[in-house]
Amino acid sequence: MQNFIYDIPTKLLFGKGQIENLTSVLQSFGKNVLLTYGGGSIKKSGLYDDIMQRLTTSHFHVVELSGIEPNPRIETVRKGVELCHVHNIDVILAVGGGSTLDCSKAICAGYYYSGDLWEMVLHPQTITKTLPLVDILTLSATGSEFDAFGVISNPITQEKIGSPFCYPNVSICDPAYTFSVPALQTAAGSADIMSHVLEVYFSEDASCDLAEGISEIILRSVIKNLPIVLKDPHDYDARANLMWNSTWACSGITGMGKINYTWSCHAIEHKLSAFYDITHGVGLAILTPRWMEYILNEKTVDRFTRFSRNVWGLEDDDPYVLARKGIQALYDFFVSVNLPMTLHEVGIDETHFEKMAEDAVKYGELLDAYVSLTKEDVMNILKACL
Amino acid sequence: MQNFIYDIPTKLLFGKGQIENLTSVLQSFGKNVLLTYGGGSIKKSGLYDDIMQRLTTSHFHVVELSGIEPNPRIETVRKGVELCHVHNIDVILAVGGGSTLDCSKAICAGYYYSGDLWEMVLHPQTITKTLPLVDILTLSATGSEFDAFGVISNPITQEKIGSPFCYPNVSICDPAYTFSVPALQTAAGSADIMSHVLEVYFSEDASCDLAEGISEIILRSVIKNLPIVLKDPHDYDARANLMWNSTWACSGITGMGKINYTWSCHAIEHKLSAFYDITHGVGLAILTPRWMEYILNEKTVDRFTRFSRNVWGLEDDDPYVLARKGIQALYDFFVSVNLPMTLHEVGIDETHFEKMAEDAVKYGELLDAYVSLTKEDVMNILKACL
Repeated sequence: MQNFIYDIPTKLLFGKGQIENLTSVLQSFGKNVLLTYGGGSIKKSGLYDDIMQRLTTSHFHVVELSGIEPNPRIETVRKGVELCHVHNIDVILAVGGGSTLDCSKAICAGYYYSGDLWEMVLHPQTITKTLPLVDILTLSATGSEFDAFGVISNPITQEKIGSPFCYPNVSICDPAYTFSVPALQTAAGSADIMSHVLEVYFSEDASCDLAEGISEIILRSVIKNLPIVLKDPHDYDARANLMWNSTWACSGITGMGKINYTWSCHAIEHKLSAFYDITHGVGLAILTPRWMEYILNEKTVDRFTRFSRNVWGLEDDDPYVLARKGIQALYDFFVSVNLPMTLHEVGIDETHFEKMAEDAVKYGELLDAYVSLTKEDVMNILKACL
Repeated sequence: MQNFIYDIPTKLLFGKGQIENLTSVLQSFGKNVLLTYGGGSIKKSGLYDDIMQRLTTSHFHVVELSGIEPNPRIETVRKGVELCHVHNIDVILAVGGGSTLDCSKAICAGYYYSGDLWEMVLHPQTITKTLPLVDILTLSATGSEFDAFGVISNPITQEKIGSPFCYPNVSICDPAYTFSVPALQTAAGSADIMSHVLEVYFSEDASCDLAEGISEIILRSVIKNLPIVLKDPHDYDARANLMWNSTWACSGITGMGKINYTWSCHAIEHKLSAFYDITHGVGLAILTPRWMEYILNEKTVDRFTRFSRNVWGLEDDDPYVLARKGIQALYDFFVSVNLPMTLHEVGIDETHFEKMAEDAVKYGELLDAYVSLTKEDVMNILKACL
């Protein structure tokens, strides 16, 4: 079992009606709040009005940063930092999914950062201090409510970089806020949850029972609960399980005690969505089974047979047949929840494959993946996704 | 799924050689350290010398509180608090298992407590501030390294009370420090880990997949790893799994999303060890299968069949037969790891049963157990353990 550090300071308030605690939570940080959110779904759902009523009744000064993009951009981070300085912000309240939370984390760190903010994204080790962050989660997907990472895009350099900025101080996780998430976003979020687990599950060291077991529970739980939610979007327990799974999937616990390799599918998907504004989880769903087929070999086959057995309940005497059955089961599952499963379906062709593959291996991280990937390997995986 | 709060601020440094970080961790709290430990096993193992050399080389001022009892007493807490005041202590460094950690937590809270310290144990909600606590774990059992609770005994009132005092700031968890733990203590510690899970596992609400799944992983992992460790006490991975299991078993995560009842076996065991100085885990091993048999009924049988299936891999068409098979498997497992399985074997007879049962139900908590227990019920369970 490998050494590791567990250090997650975030407090989670999980369940129905936890928003009751919002003002007392914010109160401990100050009165000047930057409220950040995305495209306005929180206005449709009534959550925005609920929050504003609570904050104005308790005499908070609220400044808004709305319109945070699905793949949040560095300019938006700059805009947020400027708002914080102009309005002397004490705490950021991020309401939304991973994009809003990620962007808000970068703003929290950017507030105290003296250099250029894109340099901060590239070199997060230079961050010394951050603003407090409280969030209200409205999508089960990225796990950003319980990790330090944020993924920020730079349209000029066509880069999309994930960096550790800060942990949220408090995350309010009410599964009822995800009732209104459309089917495609729910399925894409679930693919993201599964990908966070799978990127870590595929590793040689299986000596930590909790890491292995929690990975398999989360995968089985998503496979069980996503179809329930697609049938009945208001099924509270199924929504709650997806949310609690998403929180832990990206917490790092599934990799504690294991060798931690570079995440392969995320590295490639970030290049896809740096060129095309596709949904992160959709990109991952398309890539993951193809990546799996590509890396299936003598060294990896035992991991795949374990995956097939413990996650899908499959059996076969031939390990390669069993491994392929598990990969097929994952593909079929994504199809069954109506995720597009080819790049063509999401309007992506070969045009930028060369550049994407080049960028994916630019800093050499993919050589440190579970199975090392060169530019050519990435090209082959992308072609298999067409 | 029930609402819950997750809020564990403790940082864990897990693995071989993590003691390398000890002085830098302590440094952040101050130079005056109260070193607390138990009966001196850390002197035999060489850990004491290693710690002292590190601390003196880095110019810490170290005061010692040794001889903390297996069931730590309120007088020891008082002595520790006094030492902290006399020597202007900045941080407590607790080295040992649950008893040393528990006592140290009470000292951390007692340092800033103005009233009588036994009153503090009885009314922990009156604690407002605590000293920083760093610990080095040497036993996998109580999970005290990752929770806020301490169990303190009062020999005068013959009470043994568990109260939340404070979370450790940092826990250093090096499985190699448990290589020298004797077989009986290793087995008793494992019974304690299993009990922490079982006290929570038995509850109606099974809607949270992570709570259910993590419970079952921990139980299966202990069942797998304890026999390995008893055969080869230096098996690092098996020791590491037991330690990581113990950390999570008592963290609260197995009860998040569930209805949380009063812990039955712990409540009764605390009365046993308030009268007799028996090892906590031994008391729990003796009580648990008898408690299970006693509460097996129409309402609980489905939980027991799940336990038999998912933890022990058992099957039977008759749910009661299946339930009893699972209880028997647990009993047989404890026998197989050489735990004494009757009260007679540990020198306890009926003499104090009446008073113990009376004390166990004194504050009415056991009426709020998964299956309500009256004084008579507790008497019956104790008699079944003879």
